[in-house]
Amino acid sequence: MHLTQFSGYGLRVLIYTGLKGEQLSTIAEIAEAYGISRNHLMKVVQQLGSRGFLYSRRGKNGGVRLAVSPDDIRIGTVVRAMEPNWRVADCMRSAEDCALTPACRLRRKLRDANQAFLDVLDEMTLAEVLHDQAHRNTLRELLAIESLTAPPRTESAGSDRRATTT
Amino acid sequence: MHLTQFSGYGLRVLIYTGLKGEQLSTIAEIAEAYGISRNHLMKVVQQLGSRGFLYSRRGKNGGVRLAVSPDDIRIGTVVRAMEPNWRVADCMRSAEDCALTPACRLRRKLRDANQAFLDVLDEMTLAEVLHDQAHRNTLRELLAIESLTAPPRTESAGSDRRATTT
Repeated sequence: MHLTQFSGYGLRVLIYTGLKGEQLSTIAEIAEAYGISRNHLMKVVQQLGSRGFLYSRRGKNGGVRLAVSPDDIRIGTVVRAMEPNWRVADCMRSAEDCALTPACRLRRKLRDANQAFLDVLDEMTLAEVLHDQAHRNTLRELLAIESLTAPPRTESAGSDRRATTT
Repeated sequence: MHLTQFSGYGLRVLIYTGLKGEQLSTIAEIAEAYGISRNHLMKVVQQLGSRGFLYSRRGKNGGVRLAVSPDDIRIGTVVRAMEPNWRVADCMRSAEDCALTPACRLRRKLRDANQAFLDVLDEMTLAEVLHDQAHRNTLRELLAIESLTAPPRTESAGSDRRATTT
């Protein structure tokens, strides 16, 4: 039992774009930050866009950013959106897959277990993954994103949006 | 997010052998009942044996049967035993898989969600999957297993262990 790579990459893209705020990100830079293939990310970003999580601007200076607030993105919702046809077991895809299907008590339990998995993920929003300013700065460093806001100790720096972090 | 085929087949083998009771089952007959490959089942049966779920007798009249009572087999335990190295996401396999790993709050939540999935499966034993006599008879019919006990309505048939159903 595991989350598909497609969902995993989707979550990584949302974290990356969440950390960038209003700034656009390119697929190339996200791919480089995570060390994963651009081709894989292309489809992931398309799906995130078509499900309303990402806004994308085409063209030379184009890129993507979150289309909704991180507070409004529940992790379970992302996983469901990335895997609209997902099945907890092969027998969920096709009743013909298993001879037991017409009377299987286990199948119902697997569905409940799947629901429990998603319920736990729904407890967390993207905003909670990004957490506070200090945590965001840590994540930005891990992804080598240039920090756009001053660290908490320099709140008075205010309008200088290009201030760098320690 | 889904259960692997390996776990799914493991559960099917336990249901089949649970329905056969003390009678031995061959890999060939289980493969035929479910319409799946013998080669796939071979490894599944080996794993179930090595984890103590199946007793196997070699030789011409050999086969497998449950090594423990269906009451003592929790579904979550089977899934854990079939996938000892399972990971809910790629980043659980190797910390190098994702740059966020050192500070990822999502990773912990995925672990919780995985635990919730297994907890729900642990609520059910193999005995509860097999359920009562009438349900077992239904499952036997679906798998074309010749019923070894008389159906409930003919309890007085008692000692005739080869009595057929319906």
